[in-house]
Amino acid sequence: MRAFNFSAGPAALPIEVLQQAASEMLDWHGTGMSVMEMSHRGREYQSIHEAALADLRELLAVPDNYKILFMQGGGQGQNAFIPLNLLGTRTEADYVVTGVWSQKSQQEAQRYCRTHIAATTEQRGFTSLPAFSEWQLSDNPAYVHVCSNETINGVEFFDLPQLDVPLVVDASSHLLSRPVDLTKYGVLYACAQKNFGIAGLTLAIVREDLLEHALPICPSVFTWKTIAQNNSIYHTPPTYAIYLAGLVFKWLKQQGGLTALEVRNLEKANLLYDTIDASDFYINHVETSARSRMNVPFHLVDEARTEDFLRGARERNLLQLKGHSSVGGMRASLYNAVPLVAVQALVDYMQEFERARV
Amino acid sequence: MRAFNFSAGPAALPIEVLQQAASEMLDWHGTGMSVMEMSHRGREYQSIHEAALADLRELLAVPDNYKILFMQGGGQGQNAFIPLNLLGTRTEADYVVTGVWSQKSQQEAQRYCRTHIAATTEQRGFTSLPAFSEWQLSDNPAYVHVCSNETINGVEFFDLPQLDVPLVVDASSHLLSRPVDLTKYGVLYACAQKNFGIAGLTLAIVREDLLEHALPICPSVFTWKTIAQNNSIYHTPPTYAIYLAGLVFKWLKQQGGLTALEVRNLEKANLLYDTIDASDFYINHVETSARSRMNVPFHLVDEARTEDFLRGARERNLLQLKGHSSVGGMRASLYNAVPLVAVQALVDYMQEFERARV
Repeated sequence: MRAFNFSAGPAALPIEVLQQAASEMLDWHGTGMSVMEMSHRGREYQSIHEAALADLRELLAVPDNYKILFMQGGGQGQNAFIPLNLLGTRTEADYVVTGVWSQKSQQEAQRYCRTHIAATTEQRGFTSLPAFSEWQLSDNPAYVHVCSNETINGVEFFDLPQLDVPLVVDASSHLLSRPVDLTKYGVLYACAQKNFGIAGLTLAIVREDLLEHALPICPSVFTWKTIAQNNSIYHTPPTYAIYLAGLVFKWLKQQGGLTALEVRNLEKANLLYDTIDASDFYINHVETSARSRMNVPFHLVDEARTEDFLRGARERNLLQLKGHSSVGGMRASLYNAVPLVAVQALVDYMQEFERARV
Repeated sequence: MRAFNFSAGPAALPIEVLQQAASEMLDWHGTGMSVMEMSHRGREYQSIHEAALADLRELLAVPDNYKILFMQGGGQGQNAFIPLNLLGTRTEADYVVTGVWSQKSQQEAQRYCRTHIAATTEQRGFTSLPAFSEWQLSDNPAYVHVCSNETINGVEFFDLPQLDVPLVVDASSHLLSRPVDLTKYGVLYACAQKNFGIAGLTLAIVREDLLEHALPICPSVFTWKTIAQNNSIYHTPPTYAIYLAGLVFKWLKQQGGLTALEVRNLEKANLLYDTIDASDFYINHVETSARSRMNVPFHLVDEARTEDFLRGARERNLLQLKGHSSVGGMRASLYNAVPLVAVQALVDYMQEFERARV
C-alpha cells in the first residue's frame, strides 16, 4: 500500500511515473536495454534527453534567449558555481537572506567574493519577507541572489522585482508548482528531488549573456557555457535522473500544465493552512502573505506532544512529517505529486488528534 | 528480449539488479515509498546507505584508514576536485599520461597548479604502458596521478608502484572487476556507470591523512573532508544511484566476490582477444601485456566495412559496439554485468562476418 508522503525532499513522485519507470526498467521501448544501460551518446538516450529539454521549455515557457542546463551537485553545488560562473571581473555579490537556504548560499559565496546582504529577515526569525523597497543593493554587484521558496522556514516569494542587475534565484523547492515570469530572472536553479525527479539532477536556466563571466578556477564540468555549448552532454550526464524528470514533465503536461497545477496546489495549501488557523492547537509562525504553498511548517502549541503526533501519523501511513532539525515540530511538503486526498487525510488526522487531547 | 550490451558506459547492469529495482519501485520493503521518495535523513534511506558502504568496504577490502565517499560530478568532476583537495601548499602535481582520460585529468589540473608529465605514451599512440622505471617525478609534487584503465585506448595497469608521494588513481572503468591492493593508493576514484551502477554517482576512496589539504576555493560539497565527516550525507546524496550501487555490491558478493569475478572477466577477455589474434581480419593495436580486460577496442583491417559490421551486429542484438569517435572502429566493453554468453555471441558473429567476406 502506498503511503501519503509529505517528505521535503527527496519527495513523493507521481505513481504513474513510478509505474512507467518500473515497467520500462528491463527494456526501454523494445531496445533490449534499460535506460540506465544506454550510452549517453547513442540515439536512444539522445531522444530521451531532447524530449526532456523540449517539454521543460514548453512547460515553463522558457524564453529563447535562455539556456536549459542539466547538471549535478545539487542546490548547494550551485551555491559555489554561481559566483564561479558569474563574477567575471567583479568582486562583490548581493544576497537577500530569508531563511536557512539563502543563508547557506551567501556563506558559500564568501569563498569567492565579498558578499553584501541586501536584505535579511533573520531578526524576524525568517517568518516574513523583506519588501522590495527594503532591498539595499551594493554599488556594483555581479548579481543579486534570492531563494524564492525556503523549504525549512516555509516562506515563498510570489513576485520578484525587475532589477538592472542579474537576479539569481534558487527555486529548488517550488519550481514547476505554478507559472513564473522568467524574463525577470538572470539565472534560475533548482535541484530535482522536490517537484520533478530524483536527487542527483540539478537544473540551471541561464540567460545567454550571462554565460561569459566564468572564472578560470571554475571546474570544466560545472562551467555553464561549456555545458550550454554541449547541450548538457559535455560529460556523462545523470541519464536516468534526466529520464525520470522527462517522465515527470510529460505527467505535468497531462495534468494541464502549470496553470492547472497552481490551482491544485493552492487548494491543497489552503486546506492545510485553514485547518491550522481555525485551531488554537496548531500554529504556523509565518506571516500570511509569505506562506509557502509547498512547505508548511507547523507546531503543536503544546510542543511536548510532538512525538505523539508523529507516531500517530505514521500509524495512519502519513509519512515524513517530522520538521527539520533546526526548527522542530512538523512540516508537510505539498509538492505536485502529493494529491489533495493526502492533505485531506492529514487534516482529518490533525482534527482527530486535537479532539483526543485530554 | 534483452540485448547483449557492450556499452562503454553507461553500461550493462545485472538483470537481477534491474529486476529487483523494478519490483521495489513503488514500495520498498513495505514502507509504502519508493527509494526515490525517501528523505536522505530518514532511517529507511540510512539503512540503504550504510549497507552500501559496508558491502563496498568488504568487497574491496578497504583498509580502516581509508574513507569511502559517495559524490557527484563524475570522473571529470574529480579531475578538478583532486587538485582542489590535495594541493595544500604545494604548487605542482605529476601526471602519467597513457590515454585520453589521463590526458584530460592533466589538462583540468592546469586550472589549479603546474602539471608535470612524469611519463607518457602519446608518441606510441597510447598503445602501451610506461615501465615504472621510466616515470620521472618532479621534485615536490602534491601527488602522482594515473588512470589505471583507459576506457578509450584499452590499456590497463595490472600493477602499480609503491610511491612515497600519494598515488591518485582513476579506476573508473575497471573498479570491482578484480581485487586491488589499496595500500598502494592515496586516492582511488571512479564513476559508477561502468561496473557498479548508474551515471550520477562517483566514488572516492581517500587515505585519511590526505583529507587535510583542501584549498579554500574548493566548493563545500566537493571537499572530501566535509563529505567524510558527514558520512557522505553532507548534502542530499544521489540516493537512488547509491541504492542501485548497493544492489550491485550485493550481487557481486553473491557471485563470489572480486576473486571470482576476476576469473570470469579473464575468461571473457581471453575469448575475445584470442579471436582477434587468430584472425588477419580483425586487429587490436595494444601491446599484449597492457591490454585492458574491460575495454577491447578493435578494428577491421579493411576499415571500409566497419559500418557493415556494426549493422550486422545490431541485427543480432549485439549493441553499442561502435568505437569511440576519437579512435573509430569497434569497442567491446566487458564489464562485470556482461556475461560470457554475450562475448561468445560476439565472437560467433565476428567469425561469421569474417567467413562471409568476398
